[in-house]
This record gives sequence, C-alpha cells and structure tokens, in this order.
Amino acid sequence: MPKRFSASEYIDGILAGNRVLLSRAITLVESTLPSDQALAQQVLDAVLPHAGRSVRVGITGVPGVGKSTFIEALGLHLVREQDKRLAVLAVDPSSQRSGGSILGDKTRMNELAAHPQAFIRPSPAGRSLGGVTRSTREALVLCEAAGHDVIFVETVGVGQSETAVHGMVDFFLLLMLAGAGDELQGIKKGIMEMADAVTITKADGGNELAARRARAEYQNALHLFPLAPSQWNPVVTTSSAVTGAGVPAVWEIIGQYVQQTQESGYFQRRRQEQNLHWLHETIREALETRFYQRPAVAQRLPDIRQQVMDGRKSAFGAAEELLGL
Amino acid sequence: MPKRFSASEYIDGILAGNRVLLSRAITLVESTLPSDQALAQQVLDAVLPHAGRSVRVGITGVPGVGKSTFIEALGLHLVREQDKRLAVLAVDPSSQRSGGSILGDKTRMNELAAHPQAFIRPSPAGRSLGGVTRSTREALVLCEAAGHDVIFVETVGVGQSETAVHGMVDFFLLLMLAGAGDELQGIKKGIMEMADAVTITKADGGNELAARRARAEYQNALHLFPLAPSQWNPVVTTSSAVTGAGVPAVWEIIGQYVQQTQESGYFQRRRQEQNLHWLHETIREALETRFYQRPAVAQRLPDIRQQVMDGRKSAFGAAEELLGL
Repeated sequence: MPKRFSASEYIDGILAGNRVLLSRAITLVESTLPSDQALAQQVLDAVLPHAGRSVRVGITGVPGVGKSTFIEALGLHLVREQDKRLAVLAVDPSSQRSGGSILGDKTRMNELAAHPQAFIRPSPAGRSLGGVTRSTREALVLCEAAGHDVIFVETVGVGQSETAVHGMVDFFLLLMLAGAGDELQGIKKGIMEMADAVTITKADGGNELAARRARAEYQNALHLFPLAPSQWNPVVTTSSAVTGAGVPAVWEIIGQYVQQTQESGYFQRRRQEQNLHWLHETIREALETRFYQRPAVAQRLPDIRQQVMDGRKSAFGAAEELLGL
Repeated sequence: MPKRFSASEYIDGILAGNRVLLSRAITLVESTLPSDQALAQQVLDAVLPHAGRSVRVGITGVPGVGKSTFIEALGLHLVREQDKRLAVLAVDPSSQRSGGSILGDKTRMNELAAHPQAFIRPSPAGRSLGGVTRSTREALVLCEAAGHDVIFVETVGVGQSETAVHGMVDFFLLLMLAGAGDELQGIKKGIMEMADAVTITKADGGNELAARRARAEYQNALHLFPLAPSQWNPVVTTSSAVTGAGVPAVWEIIGQYVQQTQESGYFQRRRQEQNLHWLHETIREALETRFYQRPAVAQRLPDIRQQVMDGRKSAFGAAEELLGL
C-alpha cells in the first residue's frame, strides 16, 4: 500500500515538479474513495492558480494508425529540439474491458518515456467514460501545475471519448492512414469535423504517393465545411514517424493555431467556455446519478422504459411519473 | 378566449380526424399553464395507441433555399397523387425573436393549406428550443392519431433545432442550393451528416447545370463518411418546385428508405431509441430546471461561474459546492 501524503506535501511536490508526487496525486484524483476525493479537491484547488499555461493537444486515430510511434516522434521533437516539458495522458474508457489500455504498454514509447522532460500516464482502468474524463481533466491540471508546457491527451478514434477530449484541449489532431478507406478506418461521423489538423501517417517508402493523394482528398473534404468558430482553416499534412518527415511541421501548425487564436481572443474564450461546460456537466451528472439511484425510481424504471419503448406510454408522461416518485 | 373541451371531446375528435379539435389539442400541448398541461397529458396518453403509424420526415435548409415551395410541391404530390394525409409541423425557436415564424405565413403554401388532406401548423411562438421541441413532438403524436400518414417537420438549417428534429423523425431531408458555397449557405457542421437525402433545389432554367454539378459534388462528399447505423447510403438529387422535376423522386427515395429499414428492423429500433431518449432528456431537463431554480443555487451561481471561467476555482470543486447547497 503506497504511503499517503498530506495535502501540503502533494502541493509542494507538484509545484516543485516532483514526478513521484505528481504521479501519486493523479492516483488520488483517479480514486473513487471519498476520503481520497476530498484530499484531491484540496490539492487541485491549491495548485489551480499555477495551471492553465500549457498548450493542450488532443490526438486521436484508430488502432493501427501508428499513434504511439507518432506521439513518440512528435514528443521527442518537443523535448529535444524545442526544450519543452511534455505530459502525455490517455482517455480510454474501453481499457476496463480489454484489460490493457492505450499508453499502458510504455515499451511502445521507450525513448520518450525515459526522457526526463516527458511524463507519460496511461488511462485509468476500470472507469466509465465520465470517470475517465473527469480524472484526465484533473490530471491535466496537475501536470500543468507541475510545469509541463505541452499536454497531449491521447484517445482511440472509435467512440464518444473524442468529444470528451475535444472538450478539454485547445487543438485537436486526427491521425489517418492513406488508402484504408474511411469506412475501414472506423472514424465516426463528426470526428473529422473536430480536427484542427489531420496528418496522414506512415508517409514513407512505397506509401508516400498514396499518402499525398489522401492528403489532397481530405483537404478538399474539409473545405466543404464552413469555418469553425476559431476562424482556423484545418490543415492536412503527411508525416512519417520512421523518417521524421513532417513531424516538426505538425508542431509548427499547432504553434500557428495558438498564435492566431490567442491574438483573436478565441483561445482564452474557449478555455473559459470549457471550464463552464465542465461545471454544468458535473452538476448534470451528479443530479442524474442521484435521481436514478433513488430506490423508488430504480425499482419503477425498467417497467416504464419498456412501456415507453413500446409506445404504450408517452415519454413526457412517463418522465412526470418518475419525477413524482 | 377559446372554448375549452373535455378530455374525451379532444380524444374522440382527434381519433375521428376532426381538424378543429386536433388544432385545439395542439394549442393545449403548447400551453404552459399547468392545468392545460395536465389535460394535454391525459389526451396524449389516450390517443398514443393510435399514433406511431406515419412516416416522419424532417426537412431543413437555410432561408432562401426554397423550403416552402418545395414542401408545397412534395406535399401536393402526396395528397393528390399518393392519396396521403399529410401534416406539416415546424420547429423554429427563433420565431420568438423575429416575431414571425416559418410556416407562419401560410400564404406561401396556399394550395397545400387549402387541401382537405393537408394540415399545416406553424411553430409555436415565444418558446425555448426545449419547449418547441417538446410541443412539436407531442403535436406529431396527435397528428398521427388523427390519421395522418406522413408528417413533415420543417426547421431552419442554421442552429441546434436540426438535432432536435433529427431525434424525432425517421428520415432527414436536407435542401441545398447549387453554387452558393457551403459557407454562404450557413449549413452547420454535422447537419449534412444527418441527411438521409439531399436535394439541390431550384434545378430549373439556367440553374440546371450548376445543380447537377452540385449534386455530384455532394454525392462524393457523402461517400467520405462511413455508413450510418441505418446501413442507408444517403442519396443526392436535384429538384425543381417550379417544373416539378425530381419532386416525386424524393418521395420514392423516402419509400425505399422506409422499406429497407423496416425490413432490417432498424426503423422500429430507432423509434424505440428515440422514445427512450426523450424520456431521459425530459427527466434531465426537469432535474436541471429544479436545481438551478433553487434560491440558494440561483444566488450563488453567477459568482461561482465567474470564478470557474477565470480558472480561480476548479469545475469539479465548484460543482460540489453548488450541489451541497
């Protein structure tokens, strides 16, 4: 059983950039024990004024797209060439089922994991999307307070977690494969539209021409959509984690985005909106959890759901009945 | 002040297809008076077993696309050539601001409005999106119980109301103009992806070639998206409300969709999911309304929101504080 620290030990440790205490504090925000949660909130509130100064980048793409190798290549560029401190977090609610988790196999990011300016944290296991989302968002705050300039939030491009990640980052990067066909890549409708940049991975060797073709195709497709509220035109690039080609360019694009949106004020406004969104989302979740856990509601619900599904009861009438219990 | 009928008068009238009583019942579901609401629920529950037998079609497109003339042309085809009974409802939460409302100017649909097999109802004025959505969904049930085989739900393609309409219909039709450019048309990201069919309107005279080009372009763009859960491939057509070309084809496409999804079971499954969705949405809305209206919460909220926006308080800590009030 790991030693439990006091709130001030966590706080001082995090602000000093102590990786062990940062790691332990993240374990604390991931805990579902009420006493851990109370301590976690104390730590979070104390370090919050020191957070918020990083660039937050969401990275997604289906398994097989080469996410780990791309993140390692981009990450090494950041810590080695740009002298950044980088934290890599993951959102993967499916890890409870698969037993493993993305980023769980750190051997996939050997070099980056060993670098003193990089901090890699796998997705917490055994949590719902809501739980993973919440703890990832809190871990992000802790990593920022510990002095990381860039946070990557990795997720698998196959489900709802992308929307959650999109809601906690400044920039959303989508990795795609050339030639696999969108259907095969399993990219859900709407994910491509969240992308501020798309990079076609594995653009090396015999795959280079196909990657360049895919780049043109996606760039055209993105032009079909109207300008996002950020006023940013999504960029499509090709890259290779093997040769390193196109990897620094992705970081340059992120830098351009940050500069443009900071100048326009969108960057800060979006963060404020994200904060408010999480406030009201947290309240909504708590209200719903409390309601559906009430014994009278839990007992009556299955029957009512069936009647509503079958069209024997109107949704509004049924809702009123449950709310009156 | 209109005469108020008894529940059984409303019920018998609706089931007999009486347009005056149907119209009055819709006024009842639109009312915010608690006594009207109670009566409305009584009527709804009684007619519910007679509802659910229509094909529900959502129709959207920005102002200027020719929605009214298209709806009139397609509607006249349905009542005259297909012997259908058609109801046209509208979802337009903005009508509270503009003072007018879509469908409000019935002179735009002179012929259809005058046809005995057509029933046209404008969007209720002065309601929020949630309110309009709820009353439209209830009006839809009443129209079905009154024997309408086809329900059009019209909305303006510029906001969140499309998602609400998409959640209450079987088929979603998007009207687009040729040559206007997507940006100019103001179609929000994601709306095109909800479409089961797109028709390029005003494909007549000198505009025909441009319409055919736009058709090909959109059809290509739609291929970029993976197959929807319905397994239906969205179709893009051209049509002209003036010459009538392409108008019957839209109804044929809807028919094919209904047949295919009824055979696969998706049609029924989706309706069940929509019913459940509305149940839980209604509960969520009620829980949030009750919570935010509590005096202690309402008093503390502005200050807490400001602190969360500014990053002085964590969203989760702030939520806990409000939930503890």
